[in-house]
Amino acid sequence: MQQGPVRAVAGLTWSGNHYKPHEFLPTDRRLITMCPSAPQSNASSPGLMTIYDLPIGPYPARVRIAIAEKGLQSRIQFVRVDLRKGEHKKAEFLAKNYSGTLPVLELEDGTCIAECTAITEYLDTLDGTPTLTGVTARERGLIHMMNKRAEIELLDAISVYFHHGTPGLGPGVEHYQNAEWGLHQRDKALRGMHYFDTVLRTQPFVAGDAFSMADITVIGGLIFADLVKLPVPAECEALRAWYAGIGDRPSVQNRVAMSD
Amino acid sequence: MQQGPVRAVAGLTWSGNHYKPHEFLPTDRRLITMCPSAPQSNASSPGLMTIYDLPIGPYPARVRIAIAEKGLQSRIQFVRVDLRKGEHKKAEFLAKNYSGTLPVLELEDGTCIAECTAITEYLDTLDGTPTLTGVTARERGLIHMMNKRAEIELLDAISVYFHHGTPGLGPGVEHYQNAEWGLHQRDKALRGMHYFDTVLRTQPFVAGDAFSMADITVIGGLIFADLVKLPVPAECEALRAWYAGIGDRPSVQNRVAMSD
Repeated sequence: MQQGPVRAVAGLTWSGNHYKPHEFLPTDRRLITMCPSAPQSNASSPGLMTIYDLPIGPYPARVRIAIAEKGLQSRIQFVRVDLRKGEHKKAEFLAKNYSGTLPVLELEDGTCIAECTAITEYLDTLDGTPTLTGVTARERGLIHMMNKRAEIELLDAISVYFHHGTPGLGPGVEHYQNAEWGLHQRDKALRGMHYFDTVLRTQPFVAGDAFSMADITVIGGLIFADLVKLPVPAECEALRAWYAGIGDRPSVQNRVAMSD
Repeated sequence: MQQGPVRAVAGLTWSGNHYKPHEFLPTDRRLITMCPSAPQSNASSPGLMTIYDLPIGPYPARVRIAIAEKGLQSRIQFVRVDLRKGEHKKAEFLAKNYSGTLPVLELEDGTCIAECTAITEYLDTLDGTPTLTGVTARERGLIHMMNKRAEIELLDAISVYFHHGTPGLGPGVEHYQNAEWGLHQRDKALRGMHYFDTVLRTQPFVAGDAFSMADITVIGGLIFADLVKLPVPAECEALRAWYAGIGDRPSVQNRVAMSD
């Protein structure tokens, strides 16, 4: 693998497989200077892609785990976005993702793909084995259902709790908070933990017999739960056992270090 | 196509392609009596499927439009669920979809697939032409991104506004409301309309050059906007023109009548 990035990045130094320093977003210039009209792929780095994320983030974890499960690490470079500085809400980042959320996958031609499910679909279609989103109609339907359910009943609910029911990213970033809604979503997430516990009492993985994108999203939910100190209730023994076991997967263990 | 359903439905009469009467959920018995252990498919009805929905609903519209675009009407029977009676929040329905939302697709073997994106993925994988979710990695990634963006920035935001910022389905169903959050989401949806207007100024469809699942989700959002009397701002000329044009598609025009 080559030592340097194939595109110029304003004010950043390439260091192995990510950019340093992390304070990379002066407000008076673009996030990065891209050359979309002249992609510079070559045989040693076919289709080099960029992930904008934060290593410890629960949503970034979903894509990092997917990348590792697919064995695509060598084709990814990481650019860190500092959430506590609100870099994800500034115009430069919003041009990449209107919704202002992490992670974003940028293709070599400058095309940006946001939303974890969409990025996972991209990566899964790019490389067929192993599959994270299923092959048959039934597999694809059930995986997408459980993936979405993991978002609305667990991960997204905890995210809303974090941003509204706690200080979140701080007053410099959280310009609107609705604490009552945040606490309501916290309670929803706790019910969601019981639901996924029930699911995992009868099958080894969230969408059935095989590891999939849906497992990754529940992992993201429990990573976020750890961060906001919302422990899985003791009685959710199946969920706790599943999480302990799945945490041994290299893709999960190494997700933060992936960009070191 | 056969005249009657292949499974017994308690208290319902099969009428062409859906069940009547619609008050089908006595609280003291199961929603429907299924025979999952004895699927009765035959050559004249390969893979008969059931959709639980409400004809005028914005989320049901997403799946109805997908069914019509795929030409799968003859394989679908509809069961109406009365939202204003809270049938979707009762145990019988929650057994089909933990999240208590419409629509739900039930396969012949009793397997239930909830969530519009998951159902669309199921239908799209079942039958290849035309594709609603893309073929290449890039197409799939962009369609899923714009589909999710249409949910969070428009359709889901309007849904939250309806359930929290208005009387919604009424006090018998809306057991918790957070009006401030509802109004906040209404404003988010209005910003979302401007965003999609910007997108449609430069390309004919929401995810690029071809009609896709992402268009259907924006249609769902604007159907919901019509229902809650949240008009698309006059200055969103591209979005208004796109909606007027796409409303001429038979799949959109006939979505409610599909189950008559």
